[in-house]
Amino acid sequence: MISKDELEQFFRDEFPQSSFEIVSLEDRATTIRKPISHDHLRPGGTVSGPVLMEMADAALYVAILGSIGLVALAVTTNLNINFLRKPRADRDIIADCRLIKLGKTLAIGEVFLYSDGDDQPVAHATGTYAIPPAGR
Amino acid sequence: MISKDELEQFFRDEFPQSSFEIVSLEDRATTIRKPISHDHLRPGGTVSGPVLMEMADAALYVAILGSIGLVALAVTTNLNINFLRKPRADRDIIADCRLIKLGKTLAIGEVFLYSDGDDQPVAHATGTYAIPPAGR
Amino acid sequence: MISKDELEQFFRDEFPQSSFEIVSLEDRATTIRKPISHDHLRPGGTVSGPVLMEMADAALYVAILGSIGLVALAVTTNLNINFLRKPRADRDIIADCRLIKLGKTLAIGEVFLYSDGDDQPVAHATGTYAIPPAGR
Amino acid sequence: MISKDELEQFFRDEFPQSSFEIVSLEDRATTIRKPISHDHLRPGGTVSGPVLMEMADAALYVAILGSIGLVALAVTTNLNINFLRKPRADRDIIADCRLIKLGKTLAIGEVFLYSDGDDQPVAHATGTYAIPPAGR
Repeated sequence: MISKDELEQFFRDEFPQSSFEIVSLEDRATTIRKPISHDHLRPGGTVSGPVLMEMADAALYVAILGSIGLVALAVTTNLNINFLRKPRADRDIIADCRLIKLGKTLAIGEVFLYSDGDDQPVAHATGTYAIPPAGR
Repeated sequence: MISKDELEQFFRDEFPQSSFEIVSLEDRATTIRKPISHDHLRPGGTVSGPVLMEMADAALYVAILGSIGLVALAVTTNLNINFLRKPRADRDIIADCRLIKLGKTLAIGEVFLYSDGDDQPVAHATGTYAIPPAGR
Repeated sequence: MISKDELEQFFRDEFPQSSFEIVSLEDRATTIRKPISHDHLRPGGTVSGPVLMEMADAALYVAILGSIGLVALAVTTNLNINFLRKPRADRDIIADCRLIKLGKTLAIGEVFLYSDGDDQPVAHATGTYAIPPAGR
Repeated sequence: MISKDELEQFFRDEFPQSSFEIVSLEDRATTIRKPISHDHLRPGGTVSGPVLMEMADAALYVAILGSIGLVALAVTTNLNINFLRKPRADRDIIADCRLIKLGKTLAIGEVFLYSDGDDQPVAHATGTYAIPPAGR
């Protein structure tokens, strides 16, 4: 299994505009954190939906790469997200991801998203990544 | 029905970080366009999934506000997106949205996303917005 | 392309419990129809959600088999459905399906479901089928 | 909170064609079980997708009614399901549901579906129910 440091280096190299921290990385699971700034807010003082979608997608990608190695060309094929509660404008967003299938060609996982410090999720997503043949 | 200009002004005031143009606005339908820059790309020279998700969400919001007026607090409750083809790195992204239900409390629509000039969509999304009581 | 008769025979042989009629079959598109009986209803005198989900799934399968031939082992990997309006208890359900991607390993389509004679859809679904290698 | 017996009686009265057993019922969670017969199978000797969708929808409904009381007119507005593994033809299907939001007008939950005795899920669903005003 790849280390948290190697994976963070990969994201800095390949996705320099990404801005999350890998809090923990286990087999088929990860937790990532993103600091929220004014650019991420929308009217009503809450974190915008696209920021949550981006975090869900990133958490799935980290969990998959952490399990199968640095397959840069794995691509999202489906993402479904339910927005549950208004995120807090003054807290980091935490994404907890767990893969529920890691097959030869498809990986599927779920992600709970939280405002840091709250135990009720602000959103829940499921997503599918297609894994290219060379990736296995 | 609200005009395209009023709606663009609303987005400039309320979502200054948004960066799309409203190409057309009809009852329950809209087309929006976003110029793609280096920040929106990911490895493999393609537009990142979150940029497409953001465009799908924005197109739904524009179509809803265009139909019911400036309800800033309408919020996304569900978004489901299928990624179909690799978007071109050197083309704008176009989002064509059509509402399929505009009820008292929920609006549901679908969005086809394209690389400008191509007739095969790069992604397809469906989304639900909850409309607050004051919004009607 | 396979004919409507061949496809109906296939469903009678392989899915004897299925009970829909193929109204039309084109390249990457189909319309199917299911008569509604008391068994398909739920409290409130409406067609149950699972009947609509089954119709959406069947329409996708018909459209895919109609386009690539009788690949019995193509399997659904994802289905997302939005329920829009209460279907009428006394009308057939019509499902209009159009494929939006027909790739080597994945086919993705959308389905609008109607109570026969109404022009407003009762539900909208998108679904993905995985196509086994032998199927191409 | 309503009892398991009251809820089973409600389903026998209102949904006589339903055929599942409520294994457990807690606040915002339930497990239900459905015996699989030949009618539920599809080519390849596996349980059909619509049977799994029906179980997911039913488990959500049971969890919601178990938490808020017998609101017969609560209706599904969205269901998203990922099919993960081939279910076994000779085993009951078990659906484990947990609500992740129980609001005034919307309830959202997730469901893991299993072939009885296996610890890897065969499918995972998320669903939304709209709760009518009289239901609260």
